[in-house]
Amino acid sequence: MNTSAHRWPIRVYYEDTDAGGIVYHANYLKYFERARSEWLRELGYELDVVAREGVMFVVTRADLVFQSPARFNEALSVVSDMHEIRRASLVFRQRLMRGEQDLVKGLITVASVRPNDMRPVRLPGNLTEELKNNVG
Amino acid sequence: MNTSAHRWPIRVYYEDTDAGGIVYHANYLKYFERARSEWLRELGYELDVVAREGVMFVVTRADLVFQSPARFNEALSVVSDMHEIRRASLVFRQRLMRGEQDLVKGLITVASVRPNDMRPVRLPGNLTEELKNNVG
Amino acid sequence: MNTSAHRWPIRVYYEDTDAGGIVYHANYLKYFERARSEWLRELGYELDVVAREGVMFVVTRADLVFQSPARFNEALSVVSDMHEIRRASLVFRQRLMRGEQDLVKGLITVASVRPNDMRPVRLPGNLTEELKNNVG
Amino acid sequence: MNTSAHRWPIRVYYEDTDAGGIVYHANYLKYFERARSEWLRELGYELDVVAREGVMFVVTRADLVFQSPARFNEALSVVSDMHEIRRASLVFRQRLMRGEQDLVKGLITVASVRPNDMRPVRLPGNLTEELKNNVG
Repeated sequence: MNTSAHRWPIRVYYEDTDAGGIVYHANYLKYFERARSEWLRELGYELDVVAREGVMFVVTRADLVFQSPARFNEALSVVSDMHEIRRASLVFRQRLMRGEQDLVKGLITVASVRPNDMRPVRLPGNLTEELKNNVG
Repeated sequence: MNTSAHRWPIRVYYEDTDAGGIVYHANYLKYFERARSEWLRELGYELDVVAREGVMFVVTRADLVFQSPARFNEALSVVSDMHEIRRASLVFRQRLMRGEQDLVKGLITVASVRPNDMRPVRLPGNLTEELKNNVG
Repeated sequence: MNTSAHRWPIRVYYEDTDAGGIVYHANYLKYFERARSEWLRELGYELDVVAREGVMFVVTRADLVFQSPARFNEALSVVSDMHEIRRASLVFRQRLMRGEQDLVKGLITVASVRPNDMRPVRLPGNLTEELKNNVG
Repeated sequence: MNTSAHRWPIRVYYEDTDAGGIVYHANYLKYFERARSEWLRELGYELDVVAREGVMFVVTRADLVFQSPARFNEALSVVSDMHEIRRASLVFRQRLMRGEQDLVKGLITVASVRPNDMRPVRLPGNLTEELKNNVG
């Protein structure tokens, strides 16, 4: 993982857990999306503004490995960098970490589409430039 | 509860539970909304169709009493009838039951609004007529 | 609201919204619980530690008024203070705010129970003392 | 897909959707888990009973392709069969379908573990036998 990875803190609340006493597996995807949203925000892209300007991001692929469960009340972090940058999609490499331990790893592909008809649309040019520095 | 109450089956899945081993309290509101949606469907009102015709339903008030927790894998039912019918809102009386035992009881107020600006709009006339038979 | 109210920031992510373009009504209960958890943490009570010591908190009542909807990507806050403190339960008064505007208001009753059998158990004495300063 | 695939109906409610007007991507994992739970139930395995007998199922891997979005109020189905059966894990091949159209496809690996320490444990022998007929 390169030095310019993005890091976002996550706290595990009751809402995230299930009767197995661990975080419900689908909820890790929420953590990953929060981290992507915050990363784009840091780069100057507010997703509601971008949507009004004609670009919406939708997840088109997710490959997840659940290595070790997260538990109620833990303070964790999502570390994200770029796996691939294409014309109309981005592949994020994300991991949920407890300190230096990986709990969940994911490759998440996000396509850039037009909000009205969900057709692919080119990524904003500046975004592509700024993310290039983070390709691991 | 009158004889014309609506009944909808609910199965508790892992997604509904939390680390306390019981259904997470916010999720009972989901069960109640599923039951209201299915009741309206039985009366001929599909919520996506109704929305395109200019009426969206939003919850404006919820009073909930959590009497006894529901647990993973239980087969339960939501029993619903009408507490009050107004020009632009409905108050549903709903309860989640395990057999004859009440687990959660709620009074849920749903307002009828225009999708574009969320302003109150009169309920469809026929809906009001049909629900009147279920005022408890 | 007294001066010692607790305030916790909330960011609205996609996971929180629904097809009406607003926050799904059940999810406001999650925001309120996050705020309660963080308040107790500030007072020195970590909920996982407290549970191992024999006290679990369960929501037994919630009275919610949804005044105005929250929207995707908004930065909001939950303001909490105490409505009532009893031997084995607490009533929190909570509101989700956009700046100075109330969006959702709730009275949330939380009972203190034993994790194994869900029987009421006295609140930790120090917690009661510390919260007393926040009864509005 | 072989003839013995399992099919489970899904209705899309407001709780499942997001402000993009489509089902929130993480929620497809909930649909898939409901279908797996119901399939095991049909084969005689109630997950709460199995857990008390010392076997819990946890998702260890998920590979998801989101081809086309599901929308509010749609009536869909999850079609499941087995991709692979191992000593202590199962790989389910699942797809969410609108009529004959695939919306979301997934390969979901579920490990069989002991509830207390999450260590791998052999699958119940009869379950393996019964699922073998469904390896596609």
